[in-house]
Amino acid sequence: MTVSARLAQLGVTLPAVASPAANYVSFVRAGNQLHMAGTLPRDDAGNLIVGQLGDLSVEEGQKAARQCMLSFIAAVNAATNGNLDKVKKIVKLNVFVNSKSDFTQQPFVANGASDFVVQVFGEEVGRHARAAVGVAQLPFGVAVEIDGIVLLDDSACQSSL
Amino acid sequence: MTVSARLAQLGVTLPAVASPAANYVSFVRAGNQLHMAGTLPRDDAGNLIVGQLGDLSVEEGQKAARQCMLSFIAAVNAATNGNLDKVKKIVKLNVFVNSKSDFTQQPFVANGASDFVVQVFGEEVGRHARAAVGVAQLPFGVAVEIDGIVLLDDSACQSSL
Amino acid sequence: MTVSARLAQLGVTLPAVASPAANYVSFVRAGNQLHMAGTLPRDDAGNLIVGQLGDLSVEEGQKAARQCMLSFIAAVNAATNGNLDKVKKIVKLNVFVNSKSDFTQQPFVANGASDFVVQVFGEEVGRHARAAVGVAQLPFGVAVEIDGIVLLDDSACQSSL
Repeated sequence: MTVSARLAQLGVTLPAVASPAANYVSFVRAGNQLHMAGTLPRDDAGNLIVGQLGDLSVEEGQKAARQCMLSFIAAVNAATNGNLDKVKKIVKLNVFVNSKSDFTQQPFVANGASDFVVQVFGEEVGRHARAAVGVAQLPFGVAVEIDGIVLLDDSACQSSL
Repeated sequence: MTVSARLAQLGVTLPAVASPAANYVSFVRAGNQLHMAGTLPRDDAGNLIVGQLGDLSVEEGQKAARQCMLSFIAAVNAATNGNLDKVKKIVKLNVFVNSKSDFTQQPFVANGASDFVVQVFGEEVGRHARAAVGVAQLPFGVAVEIDGIVLLDDSACQSSL
Repeated sequence: MTVSARLAQLGVTLPAVASPAANYVSFVRAGNQLHMAGTLPRDDAGNLIVGQLGDLSVEEGQKAARQCMLSFIAAVNAATNGNLDKVKKIVKLNVFVNSKSDFTQQPFVANGASDFVVQVFGEEVGRHARAAVGVAQLPFGVAVEIDGIVLLDDSACQSSL
């Protein structure tokens, strides 16, 4: 089953890739590794999902993590010219959870991203190494930020960089 | 001297590799790089070492960092099918220190991990690039979390991923 | 235009590379990737730039981010034996901003680093993927810490590691 078929089955439409508002880009390829910039969570209306875990519930945090992953996948889709089947492995995700100083459930929040990426890419490609940490704040007050590394098929890496 | 001989000399027994309790894995290999998931510190009885630096002393933090590194090395051991001599270089360690807002001794805490990994792998293989930062909280309230990248010998990387 | 010519045009002199005060190193090369240790910001007199954003202004944070990047570039210069034109791409920067719990302008602080690295290396080489997060504290109380990954020309990677 192709990744786009899985996305259709899940009823997922990839959002437009947000243009970074500064001198950086959404991804850089180094050999067959894609290094993804930190992605922020947006709701279906396109608004940033803000708040600190501890104020927000774990379920709200999981939703934010899923929405980060949605933006992340949209950026991978752009990097592969719309062919997500060129992804060989989700290598590593770093999940930064905006946390009050007594909130310790970061792994459960991060599962919102991990479960979603495995649904989209399947177990073999989608299961990844992960770190989840609780940070003091995040850009614009968002609840979660996720960056990471994705391995591409050699066939996706013919150009010079 | 082999790595396992050094471990024996140091009196170190590697713990069992903890199974991640979610849709992620302890390590992913991309080419000859191993990307390691965040590891948490456990004492000799297997209990998580919890607390914030500032409440905990630097010495307690160093012990926690060392215990993270012990779990990290156990996962590398699993990744190399028990042959830690296949490790060519510890490339990078990211040391996340659970810190009260006025605790600024993260590098000294991180030394607990850095010193230990150099003891185990020797200077040439073990010395690594490092970042140490103070985070607001960590999973289950642990004192330190460490992830990173390890370079393997080509001979350890014959399979397809 | 060479990178050293751009540095001269910008009036920038690279500082000496600080020796890590522990069992780690400023950079490790893995294939043609340079993995850079976390760099700390120093003013022109060599003193660490300390403080939390929220107390410090965004402009002060940007200056600190630029000064981290200056140390970062000095370390890349050492890694390339003084030939910064061997840098093929700035791949990824991780910008850790020492943040009070209500400070949410991390991207603007991080621009101090991103804008500077693009000035030095030009758009094609210098534009990078980036994550910016707000952390609870940083080593010695510094305002910003930056680490990252740099891709080198194959011609810079002849040796064994």
